[in-house]
Amino acid sequence: MEDLYPSRNNDQFEVLQRKDPVIHGDVRTRKDCPLSDQQLSYYEENGFIMLENFFNKEEVKKLQNEIFNLRDENQETESPKIIREPESDGIRSIFDFHKSNSCLDELTRTPELINIVNHLLGDDVYIHQSRVNYKPGFTGKEFYWHSDFETWHVEDGMPRMRGLSVSIALSDNYSFNGPLMLVPGSHHYYISCAGETPEDHFKQSLKRQELGVPDHDHMKWLVDGGGIEVPTGKAGSLIIFESNTMHGSNSNITPYDRNNLFLVYNSVHNRLVQPFSGGKPRPDFIANRREEEIKV
Amino acid sequence: MEDLYPSRNNDQFEVLQRKDPVIHGDVRTRKDCPLSDQQLSYYEENGFIMLENFFNKEEVKKLQNEIFNLRDENQETESPKIIREPESDGIRSIFDFHKSNSCLDELTRTPELINIVNHLLGDDVYIHQSRVNYKPGFTGKEFYWHSDFETWHVEDGMPRMRGLSVSIALSDNYSFNGPLMLVPGSHHYYISCAGETPEDHFKQSLKRQELGVPDHDHMKWLVDGGGIEVPTGKAGSLIIFESNTMHGSNSNITPYDRNNLFLVYNSVHNRLVQPFSGGKPRPDFIANRREEEIKV
Repeated sequence: MEDLYPSRNNDQFEVLQRKDPVIHGDVRTRKDCPLSDQQLSYYEENGFIMLENFFNKEEVKKLQNEIFNLRDENQETESPKIIREPESDGIRSIFDFHKSNSCLDELTRTPELINIVNHLLGDDVYIHQSRVNYKPGFTGKEFYWHSDFETWHVEDGMPRMRGLSVSIALSDNYSFNGPLMLVPGSHHYYISCAGETPEDHFKQSLKRQELGVPDHDHMKWLVDGGGIEVPTGKAGSLIIFESNTMHGSNSNITPYDRNNLFLVYNSVHNRLVQPFSGGKPRPDFIANRREEEIKV
Repeated sequence: MEDLYPSRNNDQFEVLQRKDPVIHGDVRTRKDCPLSDQQLSYYEENGFIMLENFFNKEEVKKLQNEIFNLRDENQETESPKIIREPESDGIRSIFDFHKSNSCLDELTRTPELINIVNHLLGDDVYIHQSRVNYKPGFTGKEFYWHSDFETWHVEDGMPRMRGLSVSIALSDNYSFNGPLMLVPGSHHYYISCAGETPEDHFKQSLKRQELGVPDHDHMKWLVDGGGIEVPTGKAGSLIIFESNTMHGSNSNITPYDRNNLFLVYNSVHNRLVQPFSGGKPRPDFIANRREEEIKV
């Protein structure tokens, strides 16, 4: 398959134009689109949208219990699905939770959410990846700038930009507790990165990503163009962001945790092929290859 | 001299009440106080105040040139006044700049500023410490929560809470480029810390402070009481904060530098005695013992 988004092929960083639509298929002509025309335009232009209070307080409480139980159960687990902080044993992320937890599995099938995702991707979808990120108060470390798509393309073999992430806030997001920062409009550009992908790169990159991230000059160029947006809001809010939207977050020395659930949906017509790096595919718990499509 | 604010004497953290006024002497009955009653009340209650656009664009430009020259000149300097990042050779801070740079020395004597400081401290003052903090874009690291006074008292022998810091923003401060965070009202409480101060502690603590910082429980108690304020504003703004106000800042992965000049003023009736740790005093470039008072 032709590589429309080459990256990590040489020692150059460069900007390529996006070759895929942001909203797939014309949702404006379709009935029952759960987002307004204004919301759709915002997403198309900026590459993300926040939906406040998507889940109510009871639902949030239930999800919080699930992720804290998940963390407690896994304190001693030696599974590659459990990612620890670079400088401690603290749990930073847990991958693939929907396969072992029926409540969180059900969450991935929330009809109102799937309806939105179907409309944006113009297709039936499946879960490419599920993940909890724990950013504890006082000690939470940064996640450096990255486009998810660059990694999914190079290391997982996702052919086109036809996926998205749903970040579900399970803590209140303030401007100061290391919230998600996004670069509006960055999804229109693909930053092809320098470097070569070593084998089993994910074992290091999930702790601290240093490859497949933009260089300073291109990052500054993106931010000079689009600025930085920091959506803040109560637990239960959603941020939906396009697979190629540049994002990251700072550290968190405040006493307020920042915990988020990530659900990554991909179009069933955009299933993974061989990684474009030429290396072996990453494990299924990071990038599903056999996941069933979600019907609601 | 009696130690009114003991700390690092044992393995306990505890809260002591502040034993000094916040505003020294009744400035409200004095003429020509440059701050309004509302501003004075805000400072007294919260422990800090922001003064926007204190310096105009030309003055800011001049100061920016000075601090960048200072950094360039000192890239290779092996002076203890130059503090480098914990994980790189990047310059994090330069201390004591006012003794070697006439423009920055003049800055410490800015009449409008000294007038404010004299009113707040109710006394003539001198420079206890001068410092530039460079928090570069992309790689700037956090400064963990601390009360300056705890260190100045324990390690430098500052007897009472009768000093303050003036932070001069030489970059625009956004919510997302690792700005100064302050805990309103925290200056009313002294967090006596656990631990014992090793000799030459400053050589490590100026890179990353781990001693003389509050434990999580007390920090959460302070924040639950007062919240967190993040004053943002253009370069040229000032934040004046009381010596015992708890403050810190997160890392900075954005492309925007955050550079600040700090001027610490102390009352001439609050000059340093022997450090309350019992150790030897820190060098003069961190804590002046022979500095002349400033007359305007």
